[in-house]
Order: sequence, then structure tokens, then C-alpha cells
Amino acid sequence: MPSTLVIVRHGHSVWNEKNLFTGWVDVDLAPQGEAEAKAAGALLKKEGLWFDAGHTSVLTRAVRTANLMLEASGQVWLPVSRSWRLNERHYGALQGKDKKQTAEQFGAEQVKVWRRSYDVPPPTVTAEHEHHPRFDRRYRLLAPDVLPASECLKDVVARVLPYWHDAVVPQLRAGLTVLVVAHGNSLRALIKHLEGVSDADIVELNVPTGMPRLYRFDDALRFTQPPRYLDEAAASAAAQAVAKQAG
Amino acid sequence: MPSTLVIVRHGHSVWNEKNLFTGWVDVDLAPQGEAEAKAAGALLKKEGLWFDAGHTSVLTRAVRTANLMLEASGQVWLPVSRSWRLNERHYGALQGKDKKQTAEQFGAEQVKVWRRSYDVPPPTVTAEHEHHPRFDRRYRLLAPDVLPASECLKDVVARVLPYWHDAVVPQLRAGLTVLVVAHGNSLRALIKHLEGVSDADIVELNVPTGMPRLYRFDDALRFTQPPRYLDEAAASAAAQAVAKQAG
Repeated sequence: MPSTLVIVRHGHSVWNEKNLFTGWVDVDLAPQGEAEAKAAGALLKKEGLWFDAGHTSVLTRAVRTANLMLEASGQVWLPVSRSWRLNERHYGALQGKDKKQTAEQFGAEQVKVWRRSYDVPPPTVTAEHEHHPRFDRRYRLLAPDVLPASECLKDVVARVLPYWHDAVVPQLRAGLTVLVVAHGNSLRALIKHLEGVSDADIVELNVPTGMPRLYRFDDALRFTQPPRYLDEAAASAAAQAVAKQAG
Repeated sequence: MPSTLVIVRHGHSVWNEKNLFTGWVDVDLAPQGEAEAKAAGALLKKEGLWFDAGHTSVLTRAVRTANLMLEASGQVWLPVSRSWRLNERHYGALQGKDKKQTAEQFGAEQVKVWRRSYDVPPPTVTAEHEHHPRFDRRYRLLAPDVLPASECLKDVVARVLPYWHDAVVPQLRAGLTVLVVAHGNSLRALIKHLEGVSDADIVELNVPTGMPRLYRFDDALRFTQPPRYLDEAAASAAAQAVAKQAG
């Protein structure tokens, strides 16, 4: 049966505004991010998109984005699953630091490598560091050795895809309409897989915040139309702004 | 392992304020209900109650109560399952009417029987009535013959318990701390089962809105302390107010 997927990157967080590496640090949405989530929900409603199931990471900014979107589109009752596999990339020892601090500590060229290479992870946090996931009770039922202390995008792809294959694909194969609200890098991982983006190109792809991206599939999970943002013009402008900020 | 359960009735809804039979009609929280939910969340935080899993009905007023409680207690990332089995009692042909209207239409004594008997359901809505659940897309994947067109409390007990046994009990047997946010009658059903309340007494029991009720179990699911509301004084005053309103 034909099916529909919408993916959305969470709205602007408090640390996006401060330009800090966030990763698995659980910062909340900024007021701008809340407004983005509500606008995304209004857009879903306008497009008549009614979901059968939703998925988010276990980070507050993604969960609250989903809650606000679903409230604004009149479907807050949607069953929503949460998984650590949809979390943002763990930025290791860079978390909580801004670009200037990391450049001073590690050198600007090295930081650029960690930010823009596909398979070079930043330095890990130690097992004693407050940013190690083992101190966070939301991960306490997971196997200790599955918790990352730092990740490159390749690592993120490896952890996102099992969730995609086991939790999302069966719903799409059943003909459902599915929502995924996640993060810049977990969505990069998904887009890489879905759209066949190369290792080199995926690190240059910027996912704009709060912009629903629509996929329509046939029953073999092939596109029946090209993937697109519901609001192409706004998404394009937002992606350019992100690229500029990241430069 | 010892485990913990907290049950909460959703906050005041728009129709609670108008004193209408609500049932499965999906009315939202009133501002007072939102405030009750936030206060309940603050109370959980103060008591140091951290959950491993949550459950709500698929009705907006319960979902939003859970969302607001979890935001206020700093655990919005909690995995929350939703089930139609935790819904409010379906009030059949009484839904959307106030006590005066139903008394005029059916007679005050008859309405009292429907409200306060354990096993006499009100008249059903027809399959063509807008309040029949078959028109609501959130139930579209259920078997048509499982959808109620009217329920007595005994019916509610029969539909709530399978969810209790299959979704909640295994989490408690695993030693988890579990939150259930539901409705006056689905919680009556649960309390009847948990606390062994008689058919006659359960219809007189009033569950106050927005008041967390705490259960502590041993590994055989026996109470290790008497069930209690976190704020006993407020819950007692609220229950008396409900009883007075219902009289």
C-alpha cells in the first residue's frame, strides 16, 4: 500500500542560539523553536496530513517539538514512540563548548574535520564526565556498551538505521502515515539512506529546523514523487542561513 | 523487585466546566485543567518521583495532562504509550448533553440509574451518530465490533483490565516506576481492581482531577504501604467538591 513519511528537525533550541555544540545535552526549545513547531503543525493541518504513528528521540527539544506540532494540527492523541536511536550526534568532548572555545583548544582546522568529516569522531568524554550518557536515567535500561561517548556521522547512521528498519519501515509497509521528529544529524543519517546521498555530500547537507519534509512511497518503499519540503521556499532560505552560520 | 505506580485523572476540561456528559467526545483541557496538570507535575518533582514509562488514553485532555505534568517535572522525554482502553466511559446518547437536558428527556430517576449503577449502560448512539467512534480516525485500526456505542462502569472495567494486565503489570513486575493518566471512570475501574472495591461502593468513589495517587508494590504486586494521594488534604477536598457537584 502507498505510504507517507514526514520528517522534521526540532525547532531552535536555547543552545542553537548560543551557537554551542549540543549533542546529547538535553537543552530545551527557545521561544523561536516553539513558534517554529507550532507553525509546522499549522502547515501539516493545512496540507491535510493525518498521521497514524509518530517517532521522536528522547531529547526534550525533539519531544516538545512533536508535542507542539501535534497540538497545532489537532492530533495530540497520536501514538508516539521515542528512541535514543533518533538522538542527535553525540559530540563528545565538544559538547557545551562554542566554536571559538573548541578552535582555541583543538585548532580551527581540527574542529572543522570533526564537524564536516563523515567518519572522524571528536574526542570522547570520559566515563566520569557529566556528559557521559551513563549518568542520565533515560538510558539506564540500555546495555552500557551501546552508549556513545562521541560519534561521527557514520556512527549515527549505524545507530539510526536499526530503528528505521524495525520501527518505522513496518508501519510504512502497512500503508500508514508516519511522522519522525529528530535532529540535524539523525535526520542527515535518514536522508542519506533514503535519498542515496554520498558520504562526501551528506556532510554538506543542511536540514532546516521546523520544516516538514514529505516522502510518498509505493508498497515497495520506492518514491512515488520526489521528496520535498512542504514549504520549499522557506526551507531553502532556512538551509542557506544554517550553512552560513556553520561556515 | 518493588515497584511504584502513580495514577492521575486529567485536569478540568472545557465540558467539565459546562457540566456536560463528555465520555469519548474529545474536548480539550480548560485553563484550570492546565494549571492542575502543571501543579501535579511540580508535586511529582518535589516528591522525587522519576518514571520509567507512562500510559494515557487517546483523548486529548489526558494526553495534554500527561505532557504538561511531564514538562513541569522535567521528564518530558518519558516513553508514553496511549490506548483507547484507558479512555473515559462512553456515555452513549447522553454525550454532549447536560444533566438538565437528560433529565427532561429521560427522567431524573433514569439518568441517576445510568450515572450511578454499575451495570446499566445508557442508550447507545446509533452507528450513524457523529459520536460513534467509527467516525474517529484514531480508532480506525481497531476491530469495528470492539468500539463501544455506550458503556456502563462494568463495561469499562472489562476493557481497561486487559491493558492493565498486558501493558502495565509487566513493567511493574520488572520493578519500574509507572505513570497512568486517564479519566474518572477508567481510573475507577483500575482502583476497583487494585483496591478490591465492591460494585456498589465503586460508583460512589470520586477521583479528584489532577491529584497523583501513589501505589507501592512488592514483587508479587502486593501493597507495601496503603495507597495514598500525594496531597491528601487537597485530594479529599476535591473529591468532596466532585461528590457535591454530582449530587
